[in-house]
Amino acid sequence: MHNLVELGKAGLASQPFSSLLGIELTELKEGFAEFCLPIRDELMQQSGFVHGGVIGTLADNGLAFVAGTVLGINVVTSEYKINFIRPAVGELLIAKSSVISGGKTQAVCDCKIFAVKEGQEKLVAVAQGTITKL
Amino acid sequence: MHNLVELGKAGLASQPFSSLLGIELTELKEGFAEFCLPIRDELMQQSGFVHGGVIGTLADNGLAFVAGTVLGINVVTSEYKINFIRPAVGELLIAKSSVISGGKTQAVCDCKIFAVKEGQEKLVAVAQGTITKL
Amino acid sequence: MHNLVELGKAGLASQPFSSLLGIELTELKEGFAEFCLPIRDELMQQSGFVHGGVIGTLADNGLAFVAGTVLGINVVTSEYKINFIRPAVGELLIAKSSVISGGKTQAVCDCKIFAVKEGQEKLVAVAQGTITKL
Amino acid sequence: MHNLVELGKAGLASQPFSSLLGIELTELKEGFAEFCLPIRDELMQQSGFVHGGVIGTLADNGLAFVAGTVLGINVVTSEYKINFIRPAVGELLIAKSSVISGGKTQAVCDCKIFAVKEGQEKLVAVAQGTITKL
Repeated sequence: MHNLVELGKAGLASQPFSSLLGIELTELKEGFAEFCLPIRDELMQQSGFVHGGVIGTLADNGLAFVAGTVLGINVVTSEYKINFIRPAVGELLIAKSSVISGGKTQAVCDCKIFAVKEGQEKLVAVAQGTITKL
Repeated sequence: MHNLVELGKAGLASQPFSSLLGIELTELKEGFAEFCLPIRDELMQQSGFVHGGVIGTLADNGLAFVAGTVLGINVVTSEYKINFIRPAVGELLIAKSSVISGGKTQAVCDCKIFAVKEGQEKLVAVAQGTITKL
Repeated sequence: MHNLVELGKAGLASQPFSSLLGIELTELKEGFAEFCLPIRDELMQQSGFVHGGVIGTLADNGLAFVAGTVLGINVVTSEYKINFIRPAVGELLIAKSSVISGGKTQAVCDCKIFAVKEGQEKLVAVAQGTITKL
Repeated sequence: MHNLVELGKAGLASQPFSSLLGIELTELKEGFAEFCLPIRDELMQQSGFVHGGVIGTLADNGLAFVAGTVLGINVVTSEYKINFIRPAVGELLIAKSSVISGGKTQAVCDCKIFAVKEGQEKLVAVAQGTITKL
């Protein structure tokens, strides 16, 4: 739905930290969200890989925004768990999140984060968590 | 140990993302690490609270650096879980991390993140995770 | 592969605790495993729902056995996270697990646990975790 | 408080699955709970170690009962994460759980599980999770 993407972009723009990182919303529909983030030097840790905190931020946003498509826009991340699969290198990060189960007040969601290098998408992390309606 | 703090500060300074956020190392000894981060507008989400991604970044650093005191400096965060307890507001975030169990190749650690408002420290998140020696 | 199912059934039969619960292996192939467990009174908690420990056991087995299809049979569960979605009631539990990412020494896997009541399958829990090759 | 232990023992006795395993409550006071479980062959996996599902059950009970000391007795485990530290061998398992943070409707708690072998207590697993008031 066009309005959902517009709503999501406005929500994202109202988050100074997401702007600082350069996170963009590329898709938002009921039960699915996609964010992307161009990789740049400022987002790195010491080894030339993207810092885990950047990937965690994408997971946090991914889980919260997709939950918002079933719970309404006023939500908060209660908890999540993230597994880092491989170092994130390349030009772009993409976070794809889904609603596993949506109740009245909480949704359990997952989020997969990919790094795109020379056009090839590789899974770098996967998260699962609970989002709560305020 | 003085040298451990120096080593940790150098390690932190080599992480562009930690510099972007403004994270400082305030203590590092065997089995314990403490970071702080002055809260500023750039670190917020839409409601005037610190973005969860900032808190997750502190957790990630906290877990990894404290694990480094028992595993050596070349470590990577394999996975963690974080529970957000209450909105983070105030002037400063403090992350205190400990080693729960350290093996030869992995350590299980925890990290508590506090927000300091008008001198009062409140727990805002707690994380538990696995750090792996490279 | 027929041999993989046979191997898995033999492995399961060698676990006294899985026998005590009555867990059965119904499918095992590269990257996918399925277990089922008939619900009976002994597996309950105080409210007439299946005890979370039973569901956690299915998750643990599901994650470990599916990881074994890519890591080899000598594996151990390092950690997992589980979200309980709704109370488990009915005649049967089914656990379906998949490999998200398999490396040389570890695999990250997920497991969904369903309760079947009067023929209807409902998701009751979802787990994500790390399995390590011994 | 004596009454809290009595209340907890009655609650535990009403869980058929906890009785099947042989779990005993040894302490319950505001913010702290302790369970023990004598190790026997039926609780094993294939290698002669206690099955992870047994340890997960202790974690689940530990988190829920300790949360009940601040939320009231009608609680449910929403989610938890568990790290397995070392194989559980010996005569007895002990689970010690604490409330990290208790709100009106949810508590975040942790639980450490120890195995006692020849009188020596070793940490075998640590869990962190969310318990919700019904």
